[in-house]
Amino acid sequence: MSSIKLLGIAGSLRQASTNRGLLRAAQSVLPSGASLEIADLLDVPFYNADLKEIPESVKRIARQAQDAQGFVFACTEYNYSMAPALKNILDWLSRLPDTPVLNDKPAALMGAGGGMGTSRAQYHLRQTCVFLNIHPLNKPEVFSNAFAGGFDEQGNLTDQKITGLLTEQMAALINVIKQKA
Amino acid sequence: MSSIKLLGIAGSLRQASTNRGLLRAAQSVLPSGASLEIADLLDVPFYNADLKEIPESVKRIARQAQDAQGFVFACTEYNYSMAPALKNILDWLSRLPDTPVLNDKPAALMGAGGGMGTSRAQYHLRQTCVFLNIHPLNKPEVFSNAFAGGFDEQGNLTDQKITGLLTEQMAALINVIKQKA
Amino acid sequence: MSSIKLLGIAGSLRQASTNRGLLRAAQSVLPSGASLEIADLLDVPFYNADLKEIPESVKRIARQAQDAQGFVFACTEYNYSMAPALKNILDWLSRLPDTPVLNDKPAALMGAGGGMGTSRAQYHLRQTCVFLNIHPLNKPEVFSNAFAGGFDEQGNLTDQKITGLLTEQMAALINVIKQKA
Amino acid sequence: MSSIKLLGIAGSLRQASTNRGLLRAAQSVLPSGASLEIADLLDVPFYNADLKEIPESVKRIARQAQDAQGFVFACTEYNYSMAPALKNILDWLSRLPDTPVLNDKPAALMGAGGGMGTSRAQYHLRQTCVFLNIHPLNKPEVFSNAFAGGFDEQGNLTDQKITGLLTEQMAALINVIKQKA
Repeated sequence: MSSIKLLGIAGSLRQASTNRGLLRAAQSVLPSGASLEIADLLDVPFYNADLKEIPESVKRIARQAQDAQGFVFACTEYNYSMAPALKNILDWLSRLPDTPVLNDKPAALMGAGGGMGTSRAQYHLRQTCVFLNIHPLNKPEVFSNAFAGGFDEQGNLTDQKITGLLTEQMAALINVIKQKA
Repeated sequence: MSSIKLLGIAGSLRQASTNRGLLRAAQSVLPSGASLEIADLLDVPFYNADLKEIPESVKRIARQAQDAQGFVFACTEYNYSMAPALKNILDWLSRLPDTPVLNDKPAALMGAGGGMGTSRAQYHLRQTCVFLNIHPLNKPEVFSNAFAGGFDEQGNLTDQKITGLLTEQMAALINVIKQKA
Repeated sequence: MSSIKLLGIAGSLRQASTNRGLLRAAQSVLPSGASLEIADLLDVPFYNADLKEIPESVKRIARQAQDAQGFVFACTEYNYSMAPALKNILDWLSRLPDTPVLNDKPAALMGAGGGMGTSRAQYHLRQTCVFLNIHPLNKPEVFSNAFAGGFDEQGNLTDQKITGLLTEQMAALINVIKQKA
Repeated sequence: MSSIKLLGIAGSLRQASTNRGLLRAAQSVLPSGASLEIADLLDVPFYNADLKEIPESVKRIARQAQDAQGFVFACTEYNYSMAPALKNILDWLSRLPDTPVLNDKPAALMGAGGGMGTSRAQYHLRQTCVFLNIHPLNKPEVFSNAFAGGFDEQGNLTDQKITGLLTEQMAALINVIKQKA
């Protein structure tokens, strides 16, 4: 049986990001037979229709997205909406000339932030998924209040309740993918 | 009497952007005694908390924002939410160490896009304004369906109805600023 | 083979409602083997936690919802959000003491209204579906500008393009239900 | 000096509602020279364009709204959006044939609910205010997690932090009204 591949994308670019920490935590609680790569956004430029060539960084992530049967979005929230780096790679991936790499795939949404745990940004991301024809899981929603702790200084998740939610969520995501296959 | 300064920011980076065209059209219908600068976002990097220094491009736009008594946001929509370049400069400006440059200032929102005229993105931007304590005008809303025409090849607005709305909107923005003074 | 049952709910209470007209149009373009009942909301009171008994009208619609394998929501928009009558029956159905009647079922969203075709209200309804664990189709979205025509005086749909979208949408809804079975 | 009148509207109909409790708490922390009436929604029917007459209950609240210089909305959240009773009276008040009673007035938003404190519903209400041309305060936002306590059995607010926020919010609302006068 071939394994199930997931692609994780976090909205924050800093090394010790708690949202990247959520993706690593998701990696550690995956059901067997599934793997989760994490996209590197540091060299992805802003989408600009004047650019003549697709940047290599976008091509690289496009290949990862094409290989993936599902997505894990760690939806950093800035100023009550999505972090631009996450939105920007989705915009790039939606404008590639060849095969659609996002279309009709499921996604799990999570986020670490202030008191609302990035919920405001996640509802905006859900609206973006309507157009991209990505299918976000309804449940469980994962809202981590990083300001109240639950992460170490490297951004690694230490909170057991959120770890439990991630375990449940990754199982739900893999389950949806298996049902489609 | 000193003049009223506005700062315009568009979400699209391409030269012939219709949203930049909306900003130029807004410049041309300003009440007398008001001026509108347009921010240049091409050299603004993604916000990244690991960066040690505020980039020069951000400092430049921060000075423009500080001088401005109001904002004009041309809210390009990609995939049912805001274009990252617009959201990113707002994120940067909200994280400067010194004087707040956005706080408690009014804004006019507009956008050119598909059939809904960027309305989906504009409602997301309004939510961002709640946290930034920017005060968007309620009326008139400016939704331009650029796919149905109304712009020339350089992105200049040619539609009379939208020009009329912009005239009304700029007058309303200046009026709010004068009432506060 | 047993037939597939759908329940349609419109947000507008008036007899000649264009949103009720959309539901009737959906009935007429259903794939064979599927049927669509339309809920009658006229005798449903506001949800009020002080009420000691579930009203008979709510029990009636709860039975219809329980029998249905999917939903069709004609999402009337008032003042940029959902019509209260639609939201209210969803609130009632989410608070019944016994079997969940909404949980884990797919839904098609449509609406007739002003220039944006109820899109603003539909995105609010999508957020409500996250909590209710209803799965709205991403595509096709059905936004009908009733102010521009397309309906007769009794609220019957006469627009061919919208009829085509409804045909496509009902096929997609039935397809999702069959894949789950 | 004539006093400033506010009208408070809560989304929940039950007697011991925590959202009605928030309105009573707001009454108790008003600046001197201001008063806050609370609308009674129990006898307000669903808006229905087929009704020939404006109901007496709507006329009563319309008079209260017309007399008010500002609004206080206690935005009960059901299923991630507004409670229908609150949305419904706004819909009624927006459709009266005579003087506009909502137009161009400021509002304070608050809510008591689950872990997110009705924030999801409040952002929907803010979108509704765009069309109604009501001006919601940006700050302070008041999100009370009633599931974690802070209210007695009659729904009276006992939480000091929320009381402090309400005090600040009522002062801000009165301040905006005085600046306009």
